[in-house]
Amino acid sequence: MLNIVHRVGIKSSPGGVHRVLATKQGLAGWWTTDTRGDCELGGVIEFHFGTRGRVDMKVLELDPAKRFVWQVVEGPQDWIGSKVSFELKQEGEQTTVLFKHDGWKEQSESMHHCSTKWATFLLSMKALVESGKGKPFPDDVHISLNWD
Amino acid sequence: MLNIVHRVGIKSSPGGVHRVLATKQGLAGWWTTDTRGDCELGGVIEFHFGTRGRVDMKVLELDPAKRFVWQVVEGPQDWIGSKVSFELKQEGEQTTVLFKHDGWKEQSESMHHCSTKWATFLLSMKALVESGKGKPFPDDVHISLNWD
Repeated sequence: MLNIVHRVGIKSSPGGVHRVLATKQGLAGWWTTDTRGDCELGGVIEFHFGTRGRVDMKVLELDPAKRFVWQVVEGPQDWIGSKVSFELKQEGEQTTVLFKHDGWKEQSESMHHCSTKWATFLLSMKALVESGKGKPFPDDVHISLNWD
Repeated sequence: MLNIVHRVGIKSSPGGVHRVLATKQGLAGWWTTDTRGDCELGGVIEFHFGTRGRVDMKVLELDPAKRFVWQVVEGPQDWIGSKVSFELKQEGEQTTVLFKHDGWKEQSESMHHCSTKWATFLLSMKALVESGKGKPFPDDVHISLNWD
């Protein structure tokens, strides 16, 4: 069971977090500005990262204000078939987001990189909800010189 | 095998990264300003976080400019016995740091939290080496309202 896991607490109702996970406009505010496709259950959301490539995610589960599960159907070889999930829960003023990227086949250097990169994007999501401005690609946080 | 993994690339020679991992002054610049104890092989480094508690790490391996392995001997219950390692390798202008926090017993919410928090501290280390200023406790990046 090789997973990447993260947790952020966002000063918001679950509805505020739901909005940035359930709509193209919301997703474009924290992951990549070039988000296309269909965010409905069974749809495929396309996340484009210019020359860095793309990731297409099929929406497997969608429980508004509680749980989102996507499966990678197109993207980097080691991402294909893996699942990305977000669990939301309200704790006082905060909505806690438990993130998981499941189904890595090996603890590769790429997995190490993606773990750190996901952290920066989840903090981008937090900033977007709390202050109205995230750091989606191409203005994302660079964590190394040779990758991104 | 429940591990937290991360990767950052730092614009520096391995020596520059080594310095911030091998000395109290270096560690105080990116993890916690209140770093005490003994950084030598077999020594115990104490990381104090004010009222949040402390973590004591025994230095198990120390291969200058290549590999650091610490074991938690005092700290949060779910950290005791776990190991933290940093592998350094030079890639052109960059020193790549492969980080691992090994030996989690369950994929708890605390593990999710620590994964994200480690990412922020590794980016603090990168900032320290590249620009001379990190974000160690108590000026660390807050990732939630109810934890830290």
